[in-house]
Formats: sequence, C-alpha cells, structure tokens
Amino acid sequence: MTTTSNEHLFTAEPETPGQLVDRFDQVRKFTETLCETLIPEDYVVQTMPDVSPTKWHLGHTTWFFEAFILRDKLPGYVSPDARYNYLFNSYYNAVGDPWYRPNRGLLSRPGVDEVYDFRRFADEKMHDLFDRIDRDMDPERLRELTILGINHEQQHQELLLTDIKNVFSVNPMNPILRDFGPDPEPLGVPPMEFLGFDGGLLEVGYDGTGFHFDNEGPYHPTYVPSFELASRLVTNGEYMEFIEAGEYQKHTNWLDKGWKTIQSEGWNAPLYWEKSDHGWTHYTLGGRRLVNPDEPLVHVSYFEADAFARWKGMRLPTEFEWEIAARRADTPNATLVESLRCHPTALGRDAERGKLHQMFGEVWEWTSSPYSAYPGFKSWDGAVGEYNGKWMVDQMVLRGGSCATSESHIRASYRNFFPADARWQFMGVRLAKDAA
Amino acid sequence: MTTTSNEHLFTAEPETPGQLVDRFDQVRKFTETLCETLIPEDYVVQTMPDVSPTKWHLGHTTWFFEAFILRDKLPGYVSPDARYNYLFNSYYNAVGDPWYRPNRGLLSRPGVDEVYDFRRFADEKMHDLFDRIDRDMDPERLRELTILGINHEQQHQELLLTDIKNVFSVNPMNPILRDFGPDPEPLGVPPMEFLGFDGGLLEVGYDGTGFHFDNEGPYHPTYVPSFELASRLVTNGEYMEFIEAGEYQKHTNWLDKGWKTIQSEGWNAPLYWEKSDHGWTHYTLGGRRLVNPDEPLVHVSYFEADAFARWKGMRLPTEFEWEIAARRADTPNATLVESLRCHPTALGRDAERGKLHQMFGEVWEWTSSPYSAYPGFKSWDGAVGEYNGKWMVDQMVLRGGSCATSESHIRASYRNFFPADARWQFMGVRLAKDAA
Amino acid sequence: MTTTSNEHLFTAEPETPGQLVDRFDQVRKFTETLCETLIPEDYVVQTMPDVSPTKWHLGHTTWFFEAFILRDKLPGYVSPDARYNYLFNSYYNAVGDPWYRPNRGLLSRPGVDEVYDFRRFADEKMHDLFDRIDRDMDPERLRELTILGINHEQQHQELLLTDIKNVFSVNPMNPILRDFGPDPEPLGVPPMEFLGFDGGLLEVGYDGTGFHFDNEGPYHPTYVPSFELASRLVTNGEYMEFIEAGEYQKHTNWLDKGWKTIQSEGWNAPLYWEKSDHGWTHYTLGGRRLVNPDEPLVHVSYFEADAFARWKGMRLPTEFEWEIAARRADTPNATLVESLRCHPTALGRDAERGKLHQMFGEVWEWTSSPYSAYPGFKSWDGAVGEYNGKWMVDQMVLRGGSCATSESHIRASYRNFFPADARWQFMGVRLAKDAA
Amino acid sequence: MTTTSNEHLFTAEPETPGQLVDRFDQVRKFTETLCETLIPEDYVVQTMPDVSPTKWHLGHTTWFFEAFILRDKLPGYVSPDARYNYLFNSYYNAVGDPWYRPNRGLLSRPGVDEVYDFRRFADEKMHDLFDRIDRDMDPERLRELTILGINHEQQHQELLLTDIKNVFSVNPMNPILRDFGPDPEPLGVPPMEFLGFDGGLLEVGYDGTGFHFDNEGPYHPTYVPSFELASRLVTNGEYMEFIEAGEYQKHTNWLDKGWKTIQSEGWNAPLYWEKSDHGWTHYTLGGRRLVNPDEPLVHVSYFEADAFARWKGMRLPTEFEWEIAARRADTPNATLVESLRCHPTALGRDAERGKLHQMFGEVWEWTSSPYSAYPGFKSWDGAVGEYNGKWMVDQMVLRGGSCATSESHIRASYRNFFPADARWQFMGVRLAKDAA
Repeated sequence: MTTTSNEHLFTAEPETPGQLVDRFDQVRKFTETLCETLIPEDYVVQTMPDVSPTKWHLGHTTWFFEAFILRDKLPGYVSPDARYNYLFNSYYNAVGDPWYRPNRGLLSRPGVDEVYDFRRFADEKMHDLFDRIDRDMDPERLRELTILGINHEQQHQELLLTDIKNVFSVNPMNPILRDFGPDPEPLGVPPMEFLGFDGGLLEVGYDGTGFHFDNEGPYHPTYVPSFELASRLVTNGEYMEFIEAGEYQKHTNWLDKGWKTIQSEGWNAPLYWEKSDHGWTHYTLGGRRLVNPDEPLVHVSYFEADAFARWKGMRLPTEFEWEIAARRADTPNATLVESLRCHPTALGRDAERGKLHQMFGEVWEWTSSPYSAYPGFKSWDGAVGEYNGKWMVDQMVLRGGSCATSESHIRASYRNFFPADARWQFMGVRLAKDAA
Repeated sequence: MTTTSNEHLFTAEPETPGQLVDRFDQVRKFTETLCETLIPEDYVVQTMPDVSPTKWHLGHTTWFFEAFILRDKLPGYVSPDARYNYLFNSYYNAVGDPWYRPNRGLLSRPGVDEVYDFRRFADEKMHDLFDRIDRDMDPERLRELTILGINHEQQHQELLLTDIKNVFSVNPMNPILRDFGPDPEPLGVPPMEFLGFDGGLLEVGYDGTGFHFDNEGPYHPTYVPSFELASRLVTNGEYMEFIEAGEYQKHTNWLDKGWKTIQSEGWNAPLYWEKSDHGWTHYTLGGRRLVNPDEPLVHVSYFEADAFARWKGMRLPTEFEWEIAARRADTPNATLVESLRCHPTALGRDAERGKLHQMFGEVWEWTSSPYSAYPGFKSWDGAVGEYNGKWMVDQMVLRGGSCATSESHIRASYRNFFPADARWQFMGVRLAKDAA
Repeated sequence: MTTTSNEHLFTAEPETPGQLVDRFDQVRKFTETLCETLIPEDYVVQTMPDVSPTKWHLGHTTWFFEAFILRDKLPGYVSPDARYNYLFNSYYNAVGDPWYRPNRGLLSRPGVDEVYDFRRFADEKMHDLFDRIDRDMDPERLRELTILGINHEQQHQELLLTDIKNVFSVNPMNPILRDFGPDPEPLGVPPMEFLGFDGGLLEVGYDGTGFHFDNEGPYHPTYVPSFELASRLVTNGEYMEFIEAGEYQKHTNWLDKGWKTIQSEGWNAPLYWEKSDHGWTHYTLGGRRLVNPDEPLVHVSYFEADAFARWKGMRLPTEFEWEIAARRADTPNATLVESLRCHPTALGRDAERGKLHQMFGEVWEWTSSPYSAYPGFKSWDGAVGEYNGKWMVDQMVLRGGSCATSESHIRASYRNFFPADARWQFMGVRLAKDAA
Repeated sequence: MTTTSNEHLFTAEPETPGQLVDRFDQVRKFTETLCETLIPEDYVVQTMPDVSPTKWHLGHTTWFFEAFILRDKLPGYVSPDARYNYLFNSYYNAVGDPWYRPNRGLLSRPGVDEVYDFRRFADEKMHDLFDRIDRDMDPERLRELTILGINHEQQHQELLLTDIKNVFSVNPMNPILRDFGPDPEPLGVPPMEFLGFDGGLLEVGYDGTGFHFDNEGPYHPTYVPSFELASRLVTNGEYMEFIEAGEYQKHTNWLDKGWKTIQSEGWNAPLYWEKSDHGWTHYTLGGRRLVNPDEPLVHVSYFEADAFARWKGMRLPTEFEWEIAARRADTPNATLVESLRCHPTALGRDAERGKLHQMFGEVWEWTSSPYSAYPGFKSWDGAVGEYNGKWMVDQMVLRGGSCATSESHIRASYRNFFPADARWQFMGVRLAKDAA
C-alpha cells in the first residue's frame, strides 16, 4: 500500500511570497466563482441557526483578513464601515460582541453589492500589504496569518455550499446551483472489503512543517489495537436497506439521545430525502433527483451513522484508526470542491480490490471519537485562539474532507467536528471492526 | 360640527367601467411606487411571524386577483407557475394549503424579477377581462370582486410599509425608505380638550351603498351612554411622562396579561424606541431620529394604550363611541399613505379649538372593544368568507386609519383589528371619558 | 314562564351576624368535605400551570381571610408563618409578590397537616373577630369582606374539583373522588326546542341589594334584538355526531385561532375523552366511564363550542341574551356542588316541553361575548380591586354555574370568564339563533 | 504510597448465599432509612426532568427486581399491579414503553403506602427465590442479577438524595433531611500539592473477578504521558476567588457552550448558592447554611470545573490519569453515604502532606474524558444491555464517588457520567497538570 505524506496531499503549500499572493487571489476568487449562479435574493436567507446567508460568508471571510491582519499590520487602515466588525464577526469574543447568530438572516443591508465592494476593498489592501513585505513588517507572521485566512476562507467555501444547499432545499421552486447533467445509470459498486491494520503504540497528529490547525497537535503516541476498515464508503443503497428494515421505528440499535432525536425531529431518512411515487428522492445542488443507490450515503447524523453500524454488527472507526489508515491510502479521483460538482461520486464498480478508496473527498466520515484536546494541546495565542479549542465538548470528530472541501485544505491529520445531530454538512459513513 | 358622510370620505368610489380600470391601474402601480427605493435583498426578509417579506406582499396581492377572479372568469387562464397558489396564498384554506406563514422569509425564489413578471402577467389578464365586460360575463360580480381586490391590495400596502419598517428597524445599517427631511422643531400642540357627545339608542355600522367589508354590517342600533372624547391624539411627549412616572415598573394600571407581557418581552417604551445620550430616539421610515414630543404616539400595544388611559384616570373609547363621533368630524390635513410620508404628523398648535382632530389618518386608534360580530352578521359566501369572520376572537378593534392607509380605503365604519400585544402597525391612542 | 329573581336564586344570603357565622362555618367545612377521600400525596400535584394543588387551594382561601380581614381588623394578629403570604397569594400584586404560579406543584412543604392547622388557626381568629362585632369595629365592612371571602372560597371549591379532576385524569391508576354508582341507562332526552324571546332596549347586570361581584355592574340598558334560545344543553350524543362528521379534520367551521389550536394541541374530542374498543370513554370524578350520550356535553373550549354551533347553522348566545332568558327560567333539579355528584346530569326525557331547562348548574355555558367592562364599570377599591377588572382582555364570558358551583353562589347576572382555549372547567354549550 | 486493590475498596462483595441475602436486606433497608424523615408529600414532587420523585425511586428499584429477576425466575410470579411495569420502568425500551420521564411528578397514585407495600411484596418474593437456590434454578445467574439489582439500588440511593435535595432546595420553608449540627469553624486546609505520576503504556479498566459494570471493561492498555495530580479537592474558598475575579462575566476561560450556558441559565455561582448579607449561603441536606470555605466545592457543572481549571492555568485530569493515581491512594476518612451526613467534609488542616486525599467519597470528580466505549466494549446481553452503552455520547466521565455513594459500590475503575451542564449531583473538582 502506498504511503501518502501527512501534508501536501493534493497541492503544495505556497512557499515564496509570489506563490502566497497567487494562492490568496485564487482562493478569494474561487469563493466568488461558487456564487456565480446566485441572484441577490439567494444571498440573504438563513433557514436555521446553523446556516449563514451567503453574503454573510462573503463578508465574514473578508472581515477575517481585516480583523486579524489589516487592522494590525497596515498603517492607517480604516474599515469601509465600522459596523462590519459587529455584523461580520462570528464568535471571536475577544474582538467584540458579534451580531446574534440566529438573526443573520434578518439583515437585508449591507446589500450584496456593498459586500462585494468590501471584498474588493480588502483585497486591494491585502495587496498593499504584500507589496510592503520585507520593508516594514515581519514577513513570516504575515505569511502565517495570510495562510490562516486562506484556510479559513476555504472552510467557509464549504459552509457556503452546505448552507445554500439547505436554503435551496426548502424552496418549492427547486432551484439549482450547478447543473450536473442527467443521473448516471446505477451500475453497482465493488463489494465492501475489510482491510486489516496492525495496531500498537502509534504516533498520530500533525508532524510536518506546513500549516495546520492547533487541534491537530501535538503529534503524540497513542495505543491502537489492531482493526479492520472498510474499503469504501457506505452507499445509499445499503442505507435504504436499513430504512426498509424498519430501523427508524425500533430503539434497539440507537443511542438513547439518537432515539429521542429521531422521534422529536420526526426523522425517518437522511436529510433532504423524500419519498416519491418513483422511490426516494433527495435534494442535491443540481436539484431534486432520484437517490442513486451507488453513490456514497450523505447527510446523516452521528446518531444515524452509529445506529447503521450497530445494525450491521460493526462500528465506526476511531479518529486514530482512520488517520493511521489514511496515511497509507491513495487519493486518485477524489471529488473535491474544485470539481464544482458539489456532490459525492459513486465508486466505479471496477475499482481496484484490496485497497482503501474514497478516504479523501466525497463525504466527511463520522468517527466514534469525541472531539477532545490531544495531550499537551495549546490553543494559539490571541483572538485566533478561539478558533478550535473552545468547541471541545459535545462534538464528534469527522475525517477526510468532502466534495465541498478544497484540495489544498485537506490532509490525514485534519480534524473536523460537529454535534452528533448535525446533518447538513456532507457527512457519511465508513465502517470498521475489531481485528478478528 | 360638520357631518361627514359614512362613505366617500376622501375619494369617490369608481362607478363606470373606465373609472374601475383606472382605479385598478392606479392602486396596482402605487404598490410598486412604495417599493421604489428597495434593493432586491430588502424584499426577502421576515423579522417575525407577523411580518411578511415585501415580495410576498407583491405576489400575494397578485395571487388574490388570480385566485378569486382570473381563474374563474377568464376562460383558459393558466397561472405562470402553479406553485404560486401554494406560495402566495395567505390563509384561505378553501383555496388549498398555504405555505407556512412563519417561513415566508426562507424563500429566495421566486426572485423579485419573477414576482414583478407575475404582476405584469396578471395585470394584462385583468385588462383582458375588463375588455370583455358586457360581452360574456356578469359585469357587476366582476366589479365587486375587482373592488375587493383593490381594497385588499390597499390593506397590503399598509402591511408592506409596516413590515418593511420592522425589517429596517433591526438593521444596524439604519436603512431609509423615504427621506422626509430634517425633524421639525417641536412647537407644542393644542391642549387636549374633551368634547361631549350625547348618548342614546344610536345606529352604527355601514349603511351606504358602496364597497365595505362584511364585518362593518349589519347596520344596527346600539345603546351608547353619553361620553366625552379627546379632541386630539395622545402625543409622544405625553407618553414620555407615563414612562418617566415609572409606569412600566408598577403593576397598578396594567391588565394582568399586559403586565405579564411587558415583563416577558422586556418592554419599557413603545416599539422602535431606544434611549440615547440625547434622549429617546425611534426608528422611522426616514431613519432613526429623536422622538418629537409633538407627534402622535405610535407603535404601542393595546396593553400600553389601556394602561396609559388608566394612569390618566380615563379610558379608551368604545368602537361605537369612536364611530358616532367620527361621523361628525372634519378631515382636513390627514396624513394618509398618498403623502408618501409614512409617518404621523404633529397637530399644529394653532389647530382650531373645540373640534375633533386627527380622527382619520396619522395612527390607528385602539378602542376598548373586542372584535366581535355585529348582531345578524353573515360572512361573505365562498372562499372570501374567510376574510374577516374567522378572526373574531382575542382581537381588539382599531379605528380611523393611519399614515399608511389609502384615502380611498378608510371610512367611519371601518373596523381594523389586531391582538392586544401587536405594536408594529401604526397604532396610537385617543382618550375618552364617561360624561360628567 | 316563571320569573326568578336576580338574586337569592337557591339560598338566601346571610343577614344576621349569627347567619353570617353559620355560613362561614358551613362553607369552610364544605371545602374540607370535598377533600375527604384524598390521600396527602393527592394534595401536592400540579398537572399544568392553570391547575393548582389541592393544598394550595386550602391555604389560599385561608390566606384570603388573613390578608384582607385578619391582618387589618384583628388587633395583634400574627400569621402562623410569615412565608404563607408569599406562598398562598395568587395574583394580588398589591399584597406582595406571589410564588410563581406554574411552580405551585414544586412545594411539598408546608405539608397537608400544616395547611389544615393554618385553616384551624384562621377560623378561630375569624371567630374571635365575629365575637367582637359591635364592640370595636365596623360590622358592615367586616360583613362585606367576610361574604367576599366566603364567595371567594366557593369559587375555589369549584377550582379545587376541576383541578383534582385534571390531576386524577392523567393517572393510569384511575383514582376516584366520588363513587357515583353505575352508569344510568341512556334513555334519550327531549328534543331541543327553540324558545323565542322579544328583544328591545333592556336592562342587564345586577340590580339587587345583596353581594355581587364588581363586574356584574353597573346595571345598564343594552339593545338586544329578538332571539331564540335552545330549551336544553347540547348533549354528548349530539357532539359525537360533530366528531363523526369529521369536523375536527376540516377548517370550515372553525375560527382561525381554533383551527390552529386543535392542530397544535392534537385535539379531536373534548378533554378527557378517549376512544376505546367499546366506544368513547371519559374521565369523570367517579373514574373513567363510557360517555353517556344523554348527559350534557362538558369540557369543550370556546373554539369547539363555536365550531359546533356553526356546524349546526346556529350560534352561541350573547351573555345578555342568556341573562334575559335566565331571569325567566325555573331552576328545579339543578346539579350543583352540594349534590357532591361533581358531574352533570342528563335531562329526563319527560322534562316539560316549551320551557328552558338546565340554565343553572350542570355546566357553564359559553357565550359569544368577550369579557369586557360594563359602561361605567369601577373596580372595587384597594387590593381586592385586582379581583376581576384586570382580566378584561382575551377571555370569553360563561354563564349559569356548573355541577361544581355552590347553590349560594350563582345568579342570573353572574359572569364567569375563561380564555377561549380553556377546557378543564365544567364547560358546555347551549345554542341560540336570531329570531326568525 | 500504598497500593489499594481495584476492588473490595471498603467492603467485601458477598460470597456465600447467606451473605448475599444479608446484603440484599441491608441495602433494601438502607434505602428506606434514607427516607425516614420525609412526609408523604415529599415523595411526590419533581422539580425538573432530571429529578425523580422519591416514591418513584422506591418503586423503580423494586420494579428492577421484578422485571429482571422475579418475572423470569419465580414460577407463578404476578405483580401486585400490572401498571407498575409502565409507571416504574425508567428507560428499558426492551421491557415496554415507560411513563414519560418529565411527568413523573404528575402522579399522586400509587400512594407512598402502596409503594412501600410493593417493596414488602417484592422483598418477600426475593426471599422465596433465595430459599429455592440450589433446588430448581441457576444460582450463579440469580447471584449475578441480585448483585446487579443491589448495585442498581445503591445508584438510586444516591439519586434519591440528590433529587430530594433539589426538591427541598426550591422550598421557601427550608426543609431539612438530616440535622448535622452547627457548622464547624473554618480552620483552613492543607496547601494544594501536585504529586507526580510516571506515564507510559498502562493498563486501565476493571481486571478483577467481582461485580463491575460493563462500561468498566475491557481492561486495556492506554498510553498516558507523565502528569501531576492535586493532593486534594478544590475548596469553596478557592472557588469564591474565581467568582470574585469576575470569571462568570468574562468569556476568556469558558468553552463556548459553557459561556452560552451560564448566560442562558443566568448562572453566577454553583447550584444552591445564594448571596446573603452575611456572604454566600448554600442549601444543604441540613438546611441552608453559610458556605464553609474549607469544604470541597460541590454542585458545579463540567463547564465551571473546566473554566476554573483554565483560570488556574491548569486542567482537569483525564479519567485514566485519575484511575492510575487512584489505585495508589489511601482511603481513610472518606465521607460516604453510610455516614448519613449527605454532605462533603473538609480535609483536616493536619492531613498528611505528599499524599493523595479525598480520592473516594466527598464529591464526584469531573474528568476531561468524554464518556466513550473502551476498545472492544460489549454491552451486556438482553434488556440490561441498555444500562450503560446507550448513553455513550455527549456525556463526561466523573470518578471517585461522593458523600451519597455507598462504600460497597465504589472502586477505582468505576465510571460515572453526566452531561456537561449537570450540577445537581455531588460534583466537584480536582486539578491536574502536565508533568513539568
């Protein structure tokens, strides 16, 4: 099995100042590319507290450069509007009180044009700053913060897509973000094989020299018993069997909190699924379609992922099992956000046997690991220290990135995290087992 | 004292087919005039369940013509989109299930352009229908329904304004719908005089021959003891005394439900008021301004109106006291929606003494009358029968129209109604007393 | 038709000091008689905010004598526990902040024995006061307040019964307060006749010299058109037809707020009704039983009463129609609380034709009148002024008393009032019509 | 440092059938001893969904023997009331639908006497069963299930105490369960020392032969870096410094969910604390008292424990750090439930230095470990499999037992677990640090 490095998984990190500026420009522009089919009205709506309006994402990612770089580093920087610091702050209490999150959808102003103006303005100022490198500032700190800002923007590219998907999904007009053509014919997928991995006292976490989030470190030893991991993701077809077996109607395989959640929420299928006369349909960013049984299952909660695994007599992998395996996985053909498909792809039925597939891209994979600090974990200093550490309770870790994740953003040590009842991200399932 | 007729208060009702078409065109156009300063984003937002997005009002008033006229009367009429019947129905269960009201703000599509296209389309079809009058249809029924549709649209012009006011009021960008210039200097208002009216067994309700809502009839006798009515509306200055007397902090003058409401809602002033370093400010459709003490008080609930009256040792008028007095009131200088001011006007300090002022326009006046059926009341037949009758519980009657009401829409017998805790309409107070 | 007086309907009001003491003793004792089958645990439970625990009723009625009489009139009176003023106050803000109503069921202490000790203590002190009459106090004011306290206690006897009924109703152990024997055989009831009453300018309200609540006055003229009133109450059997016609599933006959309420609450039958294999059952204070089709319908909301009337093509009477008719009604065989039956009785099928039956006792009758002040209404002075006036919004008037009302408490001018969604009182329906 | 065994910490497990019967009798009796000062009204109240009424605990622990032993093992066993299976089931879905937990306080029946009768009845039947051992049943399975029932009852002894504490705490009558005399004079406590422990690949979990819960196994290796653990619990005095430093008013040291929780709940001190003129008081089972600064801090949430540790520049221990240390701790003078004190005890200021104190008893110690399955974890078979496994999400592990835990119930591998916002258990804090 090939060993992939812990970093530079798909795309090298920018090294020279010129590469940095190019990456900055490319990522900033790509955010806007994602919006190119939207009308102004689409940018405003918030369908639930977790969802942010598109124009908020556009403003917030811009504000991030303003609040953490421009205000400190660019002499004489003045924001185009002082109220943006209030409106576009997310949760950085150290930077001031933010506008109440569930009310982001109550704001028609600043309008979309004003927000794009804010982006133009901040981009120019960032270029002013890049032009001053080596003259009157610390180039390394600027580089660090810019790369952080780029990675932050990439996270919001993913949220922007999952949020607009939620907004479009409730709309009876069936809007489409990307027309990705007619549905492929379901041809079947390769059998799910279980690949064995030797356990032991192994090192996990980020051990490279590039950018990574504070929560990926410290690199540390952990004891992992030998285990087996599924060669591919669980498919829609496999999950339909779970539904048809009546598992949403029986408590047996559910965590108590999961069982209560599916009852209080009335869940009986993944998010966006609806039963039609022709079978299950689901809303995709290409509109509402018949569920393709070959595609990876997506938009399930941890509760559903866990119940499905139990029903199969298996379990979810821990985040370290996943990480150890992922370091040895190949990554061809991963569906990532650059594809602009915004939907996971079925594994071809001729995919090579005896190998791990779909470890990166497609859907985030729920692990059985609660999101906690690694031994010796330290948050970053300053306001950016609020980035990851303060969320370390009542969340579960997901691994591997999705079809909405950038190829220059994902790596084996990357830890995503969401509450156990979250479903609106591109979340799916890979099964694991104890070693025989 | 002059006697004003019960109808044709400001503007005659259209009589000939030509006048009807003109009125239709004028009212339809005026709705759009009210929106001329909006950007597309403004049309989408819903700040609370009572508020509807502007584009919903534009679509709903159009749907009303479609659902109650075009579909029945125009052979071969096909809606531009069948889903509009679901999205733009308000509460007419007989016409099909409507989209859930508190979720109107979740819809970015149809976009504003599509909604305006729907208006164009329906207006043309109405003209097709007007062209066919006297050929193959009952002209009187068409006239009746068209006038109902016009009056319905005028009601929504008022709601459109009060709703967008609510949307703008929460926005830290302080948007402005109409720039109505610098604040006038407070010059004082005439003293509040109490004018006596003889009671007895009197007739109330609509007794004319023109359009009126079903809830204004039947014309019927009611016994009204002699009473006194204030010559003008309560002003902001007078209400500030109530606030400064600590009345929001003492239970004494409040209805029990009012006392509980101000506590659970945290109310300590009218809606849109905020204390600043320079004194009380309030959001108006011309932006946030200092509260002018001469202007009529506006945006108070029934609870506040009632508590204020008790604190003054007086009471609110009943709806019949108000109506009997209003029939004898002059109506010069009333601020109505045609002024495009969208804000009530202070009574000049030289206004004539011994007369009733501000009975029409400015602000709706809370009465002490619960909204009930008149003896012998019958709802209209068919789906339009859901218009008024089904709301006859737990609402209070308001009278007189406001600065957002059309001059061709208001009359002495007109009954508006809202729950006792509603504040977002242009609602104010006129005091009354038992005869000495 | 016999004319019954407006007062002294069943039992004369006490006149001499000796009669007053006897009445006091009798009413105080009767409250305890109602509790004689309870175990201490029963006294504690509160099933919803509207319900109070039995021991709270026992303490509150005692506190009423303490707060409004003993503390002022009996020199040196000291409460057995100063905290009772907090725990047993209901809503008299002028007397101090009460314990939060929805939390009355959180209090195991004071225990039942302590509460009975409080009753003993206050009863003795009241007797001390009665012994001093004509010596050092105003006998008339003491008489007035004592009669108020007695009437207040009678109101709580009714609430105590309806509250313990609610408590018992949710208990799978099917507890019984009063064993009222096997169900009578349904024998049918007389046909519902409609009796005509002449309208005109009529006087309504209390015009006698005895005790009455402030809300029954002033006696005043009102114009009432001629009308017809049903000779008897609506029966369970008649209401079953309404259910079977699918009226809980169609919006047509419901007020908008009623339609929303039955959906959000999931109502499809009166309170306490459950469908069993043998037909509808309902919980009664004699346990769960088959619904007897002859008995008066009970435990419906205003919404259900109103929808039923519309479905029949009729309406509910106004409170003045009811009152005018009631003054001319006979009152034989009324089921009142003294019967200790605590359940309404079916009208015998041989009941006299052409007469009004069941106007008093059995069930409170919903009227179409919102609860408002009569012209010239003044609340009582002092803290007892909070008794009635502050509830005058969003409530409907009920008339006639029920099987839980004392015979010395009810009269033709008596106005009970509850919100339109209340069902746990003994509430039923009598139909009315406009005169032909 | 002394090594204490992993089991038999304070009291040996029963081995012979006679010892088993004695233990059964003793534990069943002790539950009732805990209730000996209650009046029937106290047994009924439920102050929040987490709290169960005392009589429910008495019934539920009895039902446990009925449902898991008597029904299967005792031929011809018939419950005294079939409805008990519904009323006294907690959450064992496999045994049937339980009564809705938040409504346990709505039930006055069965009364306290009936519940004690049920206990008598089931105890006799258990004795019948013990008498049959070796005749017609598997003695080992009976022994296992009886010991499970005993341990289950001991858990409910603790809940019974913390629940009645919550019930009494809200009562203005200040009820007392146990009079534990006047407050001791605060004399100071020994300084908090940090004791070093060597890390490495260590074995954790239960490795003995006696009773233990499924969640304590499998015994397994885990890698623990070297660490330091505080010699004693955090005291009230130390926590007062945290309060006085304004930490409840600053976001800095809080988890995001903690910060939101203290704001939405209005927390500014531990549960049961109130500021009085004489300083902080707290409700204890001996009544409301001044907070003794020497006593262990108790009734804080995980959020507060975590924020306090961060504020001190330290952290909470992981559950494995705690367990490894606990195996080497002495256990003299632990306050456990047998003391009937029901309140934690201050550590004497002369306590030996350089040793771990208060590891068992006093208060449960929050760890930083989310409650998860150990590698290879398997739930018990059958309905008792719902005991622990189905709670393994969104809970944090607590260790060490409290003043409400039985001495025959606690051990080093014992894992308690509660949501991060729970405070009503006897929960406190011990600090830890990374090794220098």
